Amino acid sequence: MKILSYRFEGQISFGPKVKKEEAVWDVLAIQDTLQVLPSFPTTIVEGIANGMDFVEQMRKLAEAASKSEEPTQFKRTFSSIEWLSPIPRTPKNIFGVGRNYADHAKEMGLEVAPENLMIFTKSPTTIAADEETLSVHSNVTSSFDYEGELAVVISKKGDNVPKKLAYDHIFGYTIANDLTARDLQSKHQQFFLGKSLKGSCPMGPYIVTKDELPDPQSLSIVTKVNDELRQNGHTRDMIFSVEELIAQISALVTLEPGDVILTGTPSGVGKGFNPPKFLAAGDTVKISVEGIGTLSNRFE
Amino acid sequence: MKILSYRFEGQISFGPKVKKEEAVWDVLAIQDTLQVLPSFPTTIVEGIANGMDFVEQMRKLAEAASKSEEPTQFKRTFSSIEWLSPIPRTPKNIFGVGRNYADHAKEMGLEVAPENLMIFTKSPTTIAADEETLSVHSNVTSSFDYEGELAVVISKKGDNVPKKLAYDHIFGYTIANDLTARDLQSKHQQFFLGKSLKGSCPMGPYIVTKDELPDPQSLSIVTKVNDELRQNGHTRDMIFSVEELIAQISALVTLEPGDVILTGTPSGVGKGFNPPKFLAAGDTVKISVEGIGTLSNRFE
Repeated sequence: MKILSYRFEGQISFGPKVKKEEAVWDVLAIQDTLQVLPSFPTTIVEGIANGMDFVEQMRKLAEAASKSEEPTQFKRTFSSIEWLSPIPRTPKNIFGVGRNYADHAKEMGLEVAPENLMIFTKSPTTIAADEETLSVHSNVTSSFDYEGELAVVISKKGDNVPKKLAYDHIFGYTIANDLTARDLQSKHQQFFLGKSLKGSCPMGPYIVTKDELPDPQSLSIVTKVNDELRQNGHTRDMIFSVEELIAQISALVTLEPGDVILTGTPSGVGKGFNPPKFLAAGDTVKISVEGIGTLSNRFE
Repeated sequence: MKILSYRFEGQISFGPKVKKEEAVWDVLAIQDTLQVLPSFPTTIVEGIANGMDFVEQMRKLAEAASKSEEPTQFKRTFSSIEWLSPIPRTPKNIFGVGRNYADHAKEMGLEVAPENLMIFTKSPTTIAADEETLSVHSNVTSSFDYEGELAVVISKKGDNVPKKLAYDHIFGYTIANDLTARDLQSKHQQFFLGKSLKGSCPMGPYIVTKDELPDPQSLSIVTKVNDELRQNGHTRDMIFSVEELIAQISALVTLEPGDVILTGTPSGVGKGFNPPKFLAAGDTVKISVEGIGTLSNRFE
């Protein structure tokens, strides 16, 4: 299932994409009108906490709407909604993984990738939507850079999750651009500030639930800037796999429903070129991850 | 005003300390019963967003209760409540400042304090209460260390807050222990993991509102471990003052109501001793900040 968040007539909502149509099922309206289920979450994070039951509930709601007398009343066309990040607000900072692809570590001037997991965070105030126009923040940085990444959405609270059970804690996947001000990242030593400028974490367009992407380590990641190919990576090249990341992070920090882990970026970021190719006003960055879709943002 | 959060009969609540008594005013019960105000927040973070108006509202509620026929029905004695951190859950990760006291930078083996602000974060799942018994996490670290700090509570959303207006964005102050696993902090390079073990950010006992502590740079900070004096610092020695921190952080990251900034620790942490004096099961750490009180936690 492809799940999106959106604003319609001023209200924040969420729902599954209508199959083969450019529209979303307004599951909150379906439940309100048809009372299909005994109860249904009112926010996407609350829903995600119910894991695959939430997906099943939305399937039932979509089916009931399809069979109703006037299904169109429950569909919101993509042209009528404002897209939001699939999770408009994470319950805490977004987790990021530093140098999780060996070829990216190399291009950053570091011969070897880190032996131990390197986790930084991004403020949830960085979250932005697919197709949202974002700033290159030229008032505070002259080296704003893109990083195309597979993002993992966590469904269940977890401490010390064994690698074998990590899959149970995944709700699904989306695409993220881990935008980074390189000068601030290096000037302030800890990555947080350079990674937390407003709008520096667009995510979307959808969450694809895990049943539709059985192997997160078998996906191509392609980043284009103004249609110029920059990153052409593959998730099989991650140093720490998605399951390993969940196991190792949760051994130290409590994971919660709606948490998002950015799994690191392959080579081909702007800083890796000589001379560097940082973002400028007017650029458009498109990140495509196999099986999910394309996240696109224009910069100004 | 001294404000605390607590659990009473299963419900999370908050309120001002009753003057000269070991009790808290149950402001939600006062408002429910006496309907003093047209409306009143139901969570402390919602209240904090109203800044000093929230303090004024609580003053009115406490006054109305005092004048009521049976004031005791609105008081919860400290022995009847479970203390919580004054902000039980921050809206995003807690902000921490690395090496904000020159003498602490020196004891960490770094001759000079950083020229630029060093900001890391702690997961909100680290938040713990005054008097809560905490783990030294001996399964994952052998160098769990204390850091006594003044914590600033933010009241207003802010981007690019000028230093001159920073005071308007402060709600009040509390005490925090920025507990850190030194081995993990160094092993994982970015500080986040070593700073985010469960319970590694006890805060309390109260938020003291800013009107009662007019100068945050004139406060002594004293940390004792089992009554042995370890840190004997003073907030006048901060490299980046509270106002400077708010200005510089908000120039890059959006601050929001209920955000907490830990302002750094003076010298005297366990790692600064030779041999180091890390925490062990059975230890009690007491951090006292002038004008606020004492935060005390036993470790096991």
